[in-house]
Amino acid sequence: MSTAAIVVIGNEVLSAKVTDANGPFLAQELRALGVELRRIETVPDEIPLIVDALARARSSGHWVFTSGGIGPTHDDVTIAAIAQAFGVEVVHDPKTLSMLHERFGHTLKPALRRLAEIPRGCEVVWSEGFMFPVLVMERVVVLPGVPSLLREAFTRVRERFRAAPIFSGAVFLSLPESRIAEFLDATVAEFPQVGIGSYPRFDDADHRVKVTFDGRDQDIVRRAQQAFVTRLPPGAVLREE
Amino acid sequence: MSTAAIVVIGNEVLSAKVTDANGPFLAQELRALGVELRRIETVPDEIPLIVDALARARSSGHWVFTSGGIGPTHDDVTIAAIAQAFGVEVVHDPKTLSMLHERFGHTLKPALRRLAEIPRGCEVVWSEGFMFPVLVMERVVVLPGVPSLLREAFTRVRERFRAAPIFSGAVFLSLPESRIAEFLDATVAEFPQVGIGSYPRFDDADHRVKVTFDGRDQDIVRRAQQAFVTRLPPGAVLREE
Repeated sequence: MSTAAIVVIGNEVLSAKVTDANGPFLAQELRALGVELRRIETVPDEIPLIVDALARARSSGHWVFTSGGIGPTHDDVTIAAIAQAFGVEVVHDPKTLSMLHERFGHTLKPALRRLAEIPRGCEVVWSEGFMFPVLVMERVVVLPGVPSLLREAFTRVRERFRAAPIFSGAVFLSLPESRIAEFLDATVAEFPQVGIGSYPRFDDADHRVKVTFDGRDQDIVRRAQQAFVTRLPPGAVLREE
Repeated sequence: MSTAAIVVIGNEVLSAKVTDANGPFLAQELRALGVELRRIETVPDEIPLIVDALARARSSGHWVFTSGGIGPTHDDVTIAAIAQAFGVEVVHDPKTLSMLHERFGHTLKPALRRLAEIPRGCEVVWSEGFMFPVLVMERVVVLPGVPSLLREAFTRVRERFRAAPIFSGAVFLSLPESRIAEFLDATVAEFPQVGIGSYPRFDDADHRVKVTFDGRDQDIVRRAQQAFVTRLPPGAVLREE
């Protein structure tokens, strides 16, 4: 319930026409919700590659978020890929179809009809005041690629992903990584339940290494951080967070 | 020779402590070099997941770039993962080891010795005036995670990746995607060698859709763009690039 994976569908990201903002946005939101993100995969707008990435994402995380490939043009293939990944047909959502008829008349062009396509069995989440629904296929949440729309769509469903919080601490050090590695190793061995990371700096930052401590048990996270600090030589710690 | 994949190794990216700058930087550089990027995968600092991502990256692109997981601490596992992916041992590079001895004396702490570790058979690229080498294991280029160091390292080896240029064009339109989809479909069918992308805007940009054309044959890219423009109703094109 508390893990996730992201599949970014986007030739425009791979060809550097656009810098992906959706992966970083979702990473931050998931972190704040207590969901551990296990993988981000950016793949081209090609059905076999999306299907393959979806399979991996579904086995890596409880929740899967896709970004992009939704719309009426030839390069919008996410719905077809999700249908294929689940072994179901693509069908038209009656409510979306009737809204399109209301707006564009009795005869819809094929491109407009595509906007109503969903994988059969998909949950179609409508929210008051929004023009388009959010699609949720079992644990796969289908989000649009345009960043403002993705944020809007995610915000409408975000509370269903909330999990137990992840607690975090950090120690900023005046020593290089090679001089703290042995103390880190000892702390890692003592607290296997705590995620410990070491991030060196080589610029003119006020510290040379930031060491982070993460876990769902706040007390154990604090104790791991304390145990590490206690092992360090005097003057090593610049500050803690 | 002209495709690539990236593996970003980074708990700090997945936990949103850091926004990845290395994927976007490499995507831009590769594009400028004429290399088609086929995949970016961001995985945790865990050997089995890195080995798995490396296998996929090596079959997706001719060149593979890894970012992160290089250094003396417990969470730096990239060298071990690459060695495992290639089925070789981790050994010490003699030149790096002798430089470390020169700087830190006869007896090196284990953490310092780790800085000389390479997968057996790896190319160790030294450049005048730099403190650390770039490692290249067959077609896998091992880059550090700290963005300034990654840029420096990539720049030292970048010319070996240069391929035939990719040409690009763009058309900015006043119509929504649903009104141009049929003209796009016809153009896509006529020019299968050209990569055509459609990017809608829903903000107050001066256009509603940007359509892009990409390929290695400049003449065919131009013809595809022209064929698309010719199909559009009058007034649809705001500008071309």
